Amino acid sequence: GFARVDHHRPLRRGYPEVVYGEDKDASQILHILQAMAATGTPLLVTRVHEEKAAQICAAMPDMQYEPKARVLYKKGPISEHAVAQRLPVQVLSAGSSDIPVAEEAAVTAEVLGQKVQRFYDVGVAGLHRLLHLLDELSKAAVYVVVAGMEGALPSVVAGLVKRPVIAVPTSIGYGASFRGLAPLLGMLNSCAPGVAVVNIDNGFGAGYLASMIADM
Amino acid sequence: GFARVDHHRPLRRGYPEVVYGEDKDASQILHILQAMAATGTPLLVTRVHEEKAAQICAAMPDMQYEPKARVLYKKGPISEHAVAQRLPVQVLSAGSSDIPVAEEAAVTAEVLGQKVQRFYDVGVAGLHRLLHLLDELSKAAVYVVVAGMEGALPSVVAGLVKRPVIAVPTSIGYGASFRGLAPLLGMLNSCAPGVAVVNIDNGFGAGYLASMIADM
Amino acid sequence: GFARVDHHRPLRRGYPEVVYGEDKDASQILHILQAMAATGTPLLVTRVHEEKAAQICAAMPDMQYEPKARVLYKKGPISEHAVAQRLPVQVLSAGSSDIPVAEEAAVTAEVLGQKVQRFYDVGVAGLHRLLHLLDELSKAAVYVVVAGMEGALPSVVAGLVKRPVIAVPTSIGYGASFRGLAPLLGMLNSCAPGVAVVNIDNGFGAGYLASMIADM
Amino acid sequence: GFARVDHHRPLRRGYPEVVYGEDKDASQILHILQAMAATGTPLLVTRVHEEKAAQICAAMPDMQYEPKARVLYKKGPISEHAVAQRLPVQVLSAGSSDIPVAEEAAVTAEVLGQKVQRFYDVGVAGLHRLLHLLDELSKAAVYVVVAGMEGALPSVVAGLVKRPVIAVPTSIGYGASFRGLAPLLGMLNSCAPGVAVVNIDNGFGAGYLASMIADM
Amino acid sequence: GFARVDHHRPLRRGYPEVVYGEDKDASQILHILQAMAATGTPLLVTRVHEEKAAQICAAMPDMQYEPKARVLYKKGPISEHAVAQRLPVQVLSAGSSDIPVAEEAAVTAEVLGQKVQRFYDVGVAGLHRLLHLLDELSKAAVYVVVAGMEGALPSVVAGLVKRPVIAVPTSIGYGASFRGLAPLLGMLNSCAPGVAVVNIDNGFGAGYLASMIADM
Amino acid sequence: GFARVDHHRPLRRGYPEVVYGEDKDASQILHILQAMAATGTPLLVTRVHEEKAAQICAAMPDMQYEPKARVLYKKGPISEHAVAQRLPVQVLSAGSSDIPVAEEAAVTAEVLGQKVQRFYDVGVAGLHRLLHLLDELSKAAVYVVVAGMEGALPSVVAGLVKRPVIAVPTSIGYGASFRGLAPLLGMLNSCAPGVAVVNIDNGFGAGYLASMIADM
Amino acid sequence: GFARVDHHRPLRRGYPEVVYGEDKDASQILHILQAMAATGTPLLVTRVHEEKAAQICAAMPDMQYEPKARVLYKKGPISEHAVAQRLPVQVLSAGSSDIPVAEEAAVTAEVLGQKVQRFYDVGVAGLHRLLHLLDELSKAAVYVVVAGMEGALPSVVAGLVKRPVIAVPTSIGYGASFRGLAPLLGMLNSCAPGVAVVNIDNGFGAGYLASMIADM
Amino acid sequence: GFARVDHHRPLRRGYPEVVYGEDKDASQILHILQAMAATGTPLLVTRVHEEKAAQICAAMPDMQYEPKARVLYKKGPISEHAVAQRLPVQVLSAGSSDIPVAEEAAVTAEVLGQKVQRFYDVGVAGLHRLLHLLDELSKAAVYVVVAGMEGALPSVVAGLVKRPVIAVPTSIGYGASFRGLAPLLGMLNSCAPGVAVVNIDNGFGAGYLASMIADM
Ligand SMILES: Nc1ncnc2c1ncn2[C@@H]1O[C@H](COP(=O)(O)O)[C@@H](O)[C@H]1O
Ligand SMILES: Nc1ncnc2c1ncn2[C@@H]1O[C@H](COP(=O)(O)O)[C@@H](O)[C@H]1O
Ligand SMILES: Nc1ncnc2c1ncn2[C@@H]1O[C@H](COP(=O)(O)O)[C@@H](O)[C@H]1O
Ligand SMILES: Nc1ncnc2c1ncn2[C@@H]1O[C@H](COP(=O)(O)O)[C@@H](O)[C@H]1O
Ligand SMILES: [Mg+2]
Ligand SMILES: [Mg+2]
Ligand SMILES: [Mg+2]
Ligand SMILES: [Mg+2]
Ligand SMILES: [Mg+2]
Ligand SMILES: [Mg+2]
Ligand SMILES: [Mg+2]
Ligand SMILES: [Mg+2]
Repeated sequence: GFARVDHHRPLRRGYPEVVYGEDKDASQILHILQAMAATGTPLLVTRVHEEKAAQICAAMPDMQYEPKARVLYKKGPISEHAVAQRLPVQVLSAGSSDIPVAEEAAVTAEVLGQKVQRFYDVGVAGLHRLLHLLDELSKAAVYVVVAGMEGALPSVVAGLVKRPVIAVPTSIGYGASFRGLAPLLGMLNSCAPGVAVVNIDNGFGAGYLASMIADM
Repeated sequence: GFARVDHHRPLRRGYPEVVYGEDKDASQILHILQAMAATGTPLLVTRVHEEKAAQICAAMPDMQYEPKARVLYKKGPISEHAVAQRLPVQVLSAGSSDIPVAEEAAVTAEVLGQKVQRFYDVGVAGLHRLLHLLDELSKAAVYVVVAGMEGALPSVVAGLVKRPVIAVPTSIGYGASFRGLAPLLGMLNSCAPGVAVVNIDNGFGAGYLASMIADM
Repeated sequence: GFARVDHHRPLRRGYPEVVYGEDKDASQILHILQAMAATGTPLLVTRVHEEKAAQICAAMPDMQYEPKARVLYKKGPISEHAVAQRLPVQVLSAGSSDIPVAEEAAVTAEVLGQKVQRFYDVGVAGLHRLLHLLDELSKAAVYVVVAGMEGALPSVVAGLVKRPVIAVPTSIGYGASFRGLAPLLGMLNSCAPGVAVVNIDNGFGAGYLASMIADM
Repeated sequence: GFARVDHHRPLRRGYPEVVYGEDKDASQILHILQAMAATGTPLLVTRVHEEKAAQICAAMPDMQYEPKARVLYKKGPISEHAVAQRLPVQVLSAGSSDIPVAEEAAVTAEVLGQKVQRFYDVGVAGLHRLLHLLDELSKAAVYVVVAGMEGALPSVVAGLVKRPVIAVPTSIGYGASFRGLAPLLGMLNSCAPGVAVVNIDNGFGAGYLASMIADM
Repeated sequence: GFARVDHHRPLRRGYPEVVYGEDKDASQILHILQAMAATGTPLLVTRVHEEKAAQICAAMPDMQYEPKARVLYKKGPISEHAVAQRLPVQVLSAGSSDIPVAEEAAVTAEVLGQKVQRFYDVGVAGLHRLLHLLDELSKAAVYVVVAGMEGALPSVVAGLVKRPVIAVPTSIGYGASFRGLAPLLGMLNSCAPGVAVVNIDNGFGAGYLASMIADM
Repeated sequence: GFARVDHHRPLRRGYPEVVYGEDKDASQILHILQAMAATGTPLLVTRVHEEKAAQICAAMPDMQYEPKARVLYKKGPISEHAVAQRLPVQVLSAGSSDIPVAEEAAVTAEVLGQKVQRFYDVGVAGLHRLLHLLDELSKAAVYVVVAGMEGALPSVVAGLVKRPVIAVPTSIGYGASFRGLAPLLGMLNSCAPGVAVVNIDNGFGAGYLASMIADM
Repeated sequence: GFARVDHHRPLRRGYPEVVYGEDKDASQILHILQAMAATGTPLLVTRVHEEKAAQICAAMPDMQYEPKARVLYKKGPISEHAVAQRLPVQVLSAGSSDIPVAEEAAVTAEVLGQKVQRFYDVGVAGLHRLLHLLDELSKAAVYVVVAGMEGALPSVVAGLVKRPVIAVPTSIGYGASFRGLAPLLGMLNSCAPGVAVVNIDNGFGAGYLASMIADM
Repeated sequence: GFARVDHHRPLRRGYPEVVYGEDKDASQILHILQAMAATGTPLLVTRVHEEKAAQICAAMPDMQYEPKARVLYKKGPISEHAVAQRLPVQVLSAGSSDIPVAEEAAVTAEVLGQKVQRFYDVGVAGLHRLLHLLDELSKAAVYVVVAGMEGALPSVVAGLVKRPVIAVPTSIGYGASFRGLAPLLGMLNSCAPGVAVVNIDNGFGAGYLASMIADM
């Protein structure tokens, strides 16, 4: 086969291998998913376009597709009760254009067993939108903060809370954003400690890491 | 002579030529200042180190030196009364390390005839420091907002006020700041409209532009 | 809803929230506009392609569309008389290829209540075109100067006038323009003080800031 | 004063404000530390050169200085027993040249109350050095992985463990490292999920975030 | 003609000129191939899309096309026996998305007379996949190691073997990969000596150089 | 009108204004050409796609179109005799993929009245191709040397001749060419003096400058 | 010896080899100069600091040193009469800080036999300074235009004259100049044709090329 | 100890660990060398300044120091006869300023048991210097080609020979060299196949790889 599935991963890392769907066709993805399905772990494929998803779901009807996040998944057997007990992962977005990346993070964390709360379009241009949420913000295990343009939101959030902030720069913006370079550098230089950064538009990576932290 | 003083400038632009002191020695600066002094305009030399300043002040005792801002100047004849009447230029800095650049802006605006108010160390990592100033912030003609690291402060300020914000990125920060590139890009991508940007560490340019706007 | 309209903005900032239309579909934009329409503020949506605009105008016939600027808008109730009294915002472009960005700035300023004058294709390769305008240039509140390629026009204009220059780099040019990086850096390094810079191709931001300044 | 100490921070964020010592002189640092000392929180100043540290310690003899990490600190009252109970923060470095940054992380985490284990010079050029540690690696709350050059170590570690990895790129290397850009980009593109990145040479930021995570 | 075929090359360099097919149309490629075919050297055209290949093969039926590698070729007269005797070129890929580039390298080396072994999808996120190959890895003349994202695989391989590693960065990855810049810089900064780097996605260049080395 | 034709240019600069056709539609170009045609100067429009050219030629049948160079032109009245007398402009290209840019330079120089000689596909990978031309190369007024990839050809040519070399980097190449940045930097750093550089893919600029020099 | 002097160069190229003095010590430079002195060509060494120059002049008293340009030279036997006949090379600088680079160009051209005119501190911030020179500017063979900051001067000059402009970006400026990148990109993107660019601060290269052109 | 010496390396990789001396003090280097000396392998420390070398040689008198290359070493027991039999590594430099990097490569290869030939100052500005060497060049196992500025030499050499070329960009040059970025990109984009690239100024890496290849 063209791919070596890392069956040992759930044992070693706690979570199964996640499939990066961008450059694989439907039959390649199916091939991998079917090899993994036997084990009963949750399944997650990211960066899947609508038509590809439809083809795969036709063959594996228990897979679900979330179009906003371009994510295909099957949750593992999760105790609803256990999830309800835990502190949630909170996912914030600065603008409404950042929502697809935020959703990729949110769905990833849910598939990996987390309770997720979403607060979208709360960017720093209208600070009261964030300040109104102060009470809610105090009740999270960890934050995923998604922002394009200047990427200021993670610093502001981190300055207000006690828990780790995972910052996700997006490629939303034009010109001197240089496809996400501006918020990426901004977030790496955050003046508020407690912020760590993942790749541009990498909602998946943020959701995964948030889940690891919330599991502690 | 090596330099052509632009004697026509006050007439054409409202303000006299300002001398960029970095690469000129004391005798060159003196030469230029003496050519200009006759006309009675205010005098301003930026980027002057302490010793150079001392040499020049020895020869022209009516020049003043502000070491934090590295600026040498002689104010023009300003009516204290007129200044008191006008709306001030407000200069804000995110951190205490940004103060030299903020001072360059503040002194420049003062030399050009403005009333200036300073609010330093009010960065977004502790937002309450800024929110406490909301009342005062509502009474300015224009804002100069100086920040290094991720440079988020101008966006936050612009989101709270009605007047133009001039953003000055500083080279304060390390590593992925890339000597001010991070806050520069951040400020250019501000999600809050009403922000314009000047060169990295260019306190002078910000103070000059602020003065032009406050003069309107 | 996916978006939190900042209804408080006109009060806080003097102008209403402006909708960034690039990544939103017609129904999302309509949703936001209808939420705002009740309040009677002017409405402005930027980066709207022709078909999207047609769909929206069909539902809200009092919206107008300016194709060159890709802007959709409804002016607020403006007193023609008041507008005529004030000093205009002057919008200059270096080449004829820069006109779409210049128009975005011009229409933005008009929607926000300004009188606007346009001088296009007056780049530095044929300086007499600009020098012929010297008289007219002396009668503005503020200048928006739009240029691609090396972006030299803002410096030259700033060297001739008493009022603030807002420089807008465009992505027009090829190769070593690096999609607008060349004029962006050029404008940030302007040797003439009194210049501030907005994002590449950001006509909207320049028109908004110019309007703020002209309102003073 | 030039600085506004954020006294509210321990309450809001769980940890006190940390002082960035690079651009402050001894008297400025003393001024801030004395304002904070009263409250009994731990004290931490980063990027302090030896002589500056000596001056401060002379005035505040209960401060300690760690020269390798260039860090000045006073631990808060920590129960040795409580520390012993918890899972440690593990700090790994790829080369021996990366140790100063690794120590900044380690001491930061210790001052904030963590138990810390150090594994230095375990870079991927000699993989057995890391594989020998597999057992020990399985017993951490979180990892800080410090590497210069190509910055491959965090990916390799993350591929072997269940807990979050905080990656710190260093400016160690020459030429095409471009002062840490190479490992920074490498770490952001890690093929192993569970990695987040902080600024180049930012040991402090990594130690702080690790401490937040270990506190959960 | 538009092209000057370097007929002298096989003599001077040991291998014939290879045709870069990207910007040439089918008739131009045919023209060149026919000029070279007479001499009996192997023929190799890289970066050829499927339809172009079909057109050319129709006219020159002894050409073969490998779609995964987008390579069109005719092997020279090779003694199977001689090939079997020699140490192979081993081609490794980190992910399955890197396979097209790896195949370009592998087919190039085969056309130039080498024995090639392929080990794909053995990236550092699951190190055991590589460690299982240790025995096989000890039996190569030279390694071509293809990786996108952080590009860590060449360092890890070089740390385990005695022979030269040719590292090929790919443009696979998103955001802060900046189209292959991240793995390119990573590979240039490899902490394990014995690694040299070719251009991003340049499978051909790696296969050619590997062949030169294996010929020694 | 949208464009201000610089009718004064032939007088001031010796050559007429050249139209940059990329972002203008056929009717805009026609409009400008017709305004200029009256004066009898040569006409030149660059970056014109085939269909646009056909539309314009339909309306102005004395215009000619050169598809390889994407250039539309009408030569002025040139004395064939005078042209024959002068030293030619020599245009060299490194690869056959660089020919469109080389042709833009060649046609530009011809339209401006020069005699042009073309030597294509003489890159440094097969040095004998260039060395065979040594005699011919000694008889030029000026050289336009077009190269992509590493852009080494201008240095090599300059090292062999007495006349100025105008170097044109092209965006031909992949990966670490970064769309022409590699040959651009290479040419700017030429170790052979006598080389000056124009923008990436700017055949027009090179042909224009070459013509100016050959006119001396 | 460590260096292979290219004795054949005057014959092949018209001018002798020029010595790059930056990284060579006085004895190495002497060694090379003495090897060349026999031939009677002019001698030129660039980037020589004062002390090194003194050491060399002590040993070769007919060498001259120009400290502003950091250039050491001995003119060849030039007929004053012949020089007076020719059109001069004109060297312009935008600011007075650019003078050292301008002088390197001017002295280089003089050593290679040209008549040189200097116009310094005529940048675009005060355009009248340049317009006053229009008459003089019309009498040159070629222009060397030296500018830092945004580097606008070459475009403006080229728009006014008939002869080639060689643009030299300098590293003068701060922050977003990125050590000369800003004017370099600006000059490469000049909207006025007839401009070619040399390396940042490369006065030598500009003077050499100008001399080649003036010799035609 | 602070460092974990990789004693297993000679077995695994054929060569011992090489010490990177830049950031280590004399006592740290001594500590490592003494741990390794027992085993009888050759010893190599790179990037050692003169004084540090003197201190170490005082304690370990059988170490030798090569100041041009800044390398400290002790050769292993090599059979002079065996060395004489083999094809040499040839090290070429473009300029005389590139010699220190070339020497680092040459000495590294010698310490690892190779026969080395040096050809310095043979850059492309005077091609005859290289062409005179054609015969000698045909008798190497592998080439290390060191060049700064535009870095064209490796392409030219590779176009003339049958064996692998290892290209080493140097930081020699100014301005738009951007500390070696220009030759680095140039070499990665070489139009001649058979070239691989190492880090800027990384003579050590090139010498090590050349030695590996020559050993085959
Ligand atoms: N061209 C633009 N038009 C409107 N808003 C813009 C533009 N550029 C940036 N913005 C800012 O982008 C934010 C809109 O983001 P979103 O919530 O995604 O609609 C607003 O706060 C605007 O201030
Ligand atoms: N390829 C090109 N063809 C024509 N003009 C060009 C080209 N590249 C740059 N230019 C310059 O761009 C300007 C045209 O701008 P525009 O007014 O938009 O047509 C002219 O002044 C030209 O000198
Ligand atoms: N400022 C400069 N002065 C002299 N030579 C230079 C300069 N810049 C580049 N060069 C070139 O660099 C080469 C000198 O290299 P080197 O052999 O190290 O002295 C010569 O071929 C020059 O053409
Ligand atoms: N010039 C160099 N000399 C020695 N080692 C080097 C050099 N450049 C990179 N390295 C690598 O850097 C590592 C040494 O890092 P350290 O543990 O800090 O001494 C070794 O694995 C070497 O392979
Ligand atoms: Mg919004
Ligand atoms: Mg502070
Ligand atoms: Mg025009
Ligand atoms: Mg080590
Ligand atoms: Mg895989
Ligand atoms: Mg060819
Ligand atoms: Mg001046
Ligand atoms: Mg030389």
